Amino acid sequence: MMRLIVLICDNQRVRIVLVEPTHPGNIGATARAMKTMGFFRLVLVSPKLFPHHEATGRAAGADDVLEQAVIVDHLAEGLSGCDWVIGASARFRTLPRHVYDPKTCVRTIMQQPDRQVAFVFGRESSGLHNDELALCHDQIHIPTNENFSSLNLAAAVQIIVYELRMAMLLEEKPIQKTYSKEEPLATAEQMSGFYDHLRNTLIQIDFLNVKQPKRLMERLQMLFNRSQLTVTELNIMRGILRAMNKKTE
Amino acid sequence: MMRLIVLICDNQRVRIVLVEPTHPGNIGATARAMKTMGFFRLVLVSPKLFPHHEATGRAAGADDVLEQAVIVDHLAEGLSGCDWVIGASARFRTLPRHVYDPKTCVRTIMQQPDRQVAFVFGRESSGLHNDELALCHDQIHIPTNENFSSLNLAAAVQIIVYELRMAMLLEEKPIQKTYSKEEPLATAEQMSGFYDHLRNTLIQIDFLNVKQPKRLMERLQMLFNRSQLTVTELNIMRGILRAMNKKTE
Repeated sequence: MMRLIVLICDNQRVRIVLVEPTHPGNIGATARAMKTMGFFRLVLVSPKLFPHHEATGRAAGADDVLEQAVIVDHLAEGLSGCDWVIGASARFRTLPRHVYDPKTCVRTIMQQPDRQVAFVFGRESSGLHNDELALCHDQIHIPTNENFSSLNLAAAVQIIVYELRMAMLLEEKPIQKTYSKEEPLATAEQMSGFYDHLRNTLIQIDFLNVKQPKRLMERLQMLFNRSQLTVTELNIMRGILRAMNKKTE
Repeated sequence: MMRLIVLICDNQRVRIVLVEPTHPGNIGATARAMKTMGFFRLVLVSPKLFPHHEATGRAAGADDVLEQAVIVDHLAEGLSGCDWVIGASARFRTLPRHVYDPKTCVRTIMQQPDRQVAFVFGRESSGLHNDELALCHDQIHIPTNENFSSLNLAAAVQIIVYELRMAMLLEEKPIQKTYSKEEPLATAEQMSGFYDHLRNTLIQIDFLNVKQPKRLMERLQMLFNRSQLTVTELNIMRGILRAMNKKTE
């Protein structure tokens, strides 16, 4: 009974986000992969073709996952309510970021049962863009063959949801809260609001040149995302920005 | 170097056998799944349509696996040279047989490095027949959702070859959570200089009241320490503070 409760909780707090999937067949295959492992929360960011008969065909009975899918225009909208965003991308960036292997990643998720998790998968051809990776707190990398790393989108999702299910099944007893911080973490929306405020303030103090932004905001977002701000810390940072705005005006 | 040798040995001694696959797309997707995880030995027992453009399309570059695929009329021929045949079937038979979960199965395979292993996958619609299951020494079952166990053929192969690859990689050394690029981290002295600068700036913009500092600096230090700033990130933060100083003076 307890195990069942754990399973229900965990599959509700994990969502799978596909950013601009090109092939509707991959959307259907993703829905099928999710449902076979007991996951149902699918978010589609600007899918090229959806709904589509190929999506329905490849879903092979996971129509409910497709019907309940949340469709949004931009990645940030799809992350509403999440406090842990994990980017799945084969492309390694030059900027430093924590990179998990799937097993370590799901183990860490199981240890932090209160968090709302999003796995974000990029486009079939080009992965995630820099501004999208900047919204991710961590990155997950499936260790593929160095000479052929071309994992199909739905196959990558299949591996992640399989690992999640296996980790959930292996949990024999109720999960203890091991996360040390007792303060609630800032949500993705709150972080997004902070980044807007930060960006505007950096323009105001002539530090950020809008004509040559380079990768400044991306770097700062990665820095603060790594740190996983609590709501109190976020309020302090917003307070600093407001004090700066006041002095400058 | 040692890891490479282990990988070569292991991927040579494991073959994937598909019995009468109906959809050529699944053959291609299986080849792709195998190659992404470093496996190349594919056996096809009486494939309905092969070679076929859908197989080639879904292989997405794993053409070599398709070209080298061994095609046979009956399962027994495809098992030539194998001393360990593991049937992958969602259907449980009445005959007693050891049923592995994927993780236990690959662990056992790693413990027996001299054995030649075949994973046998049944037809998309009807799995393995009784005479085919009779050729299997053991059975593997991927623990799917009880209410929707319809795992796609190539997705099932993907999970098995993924587990094999992970087991082979872990054999060599545990995969650590790591940075994608090694940028030098800021030293304690550099961080201390940054905190002094931050404190003075917060006083300058009237955010920090020196008579009632509360625990503001302590909180900010915890935030930035958690993040483990690189030297580049520290320089950005110092740059922001300097821009602020300039605007305020």
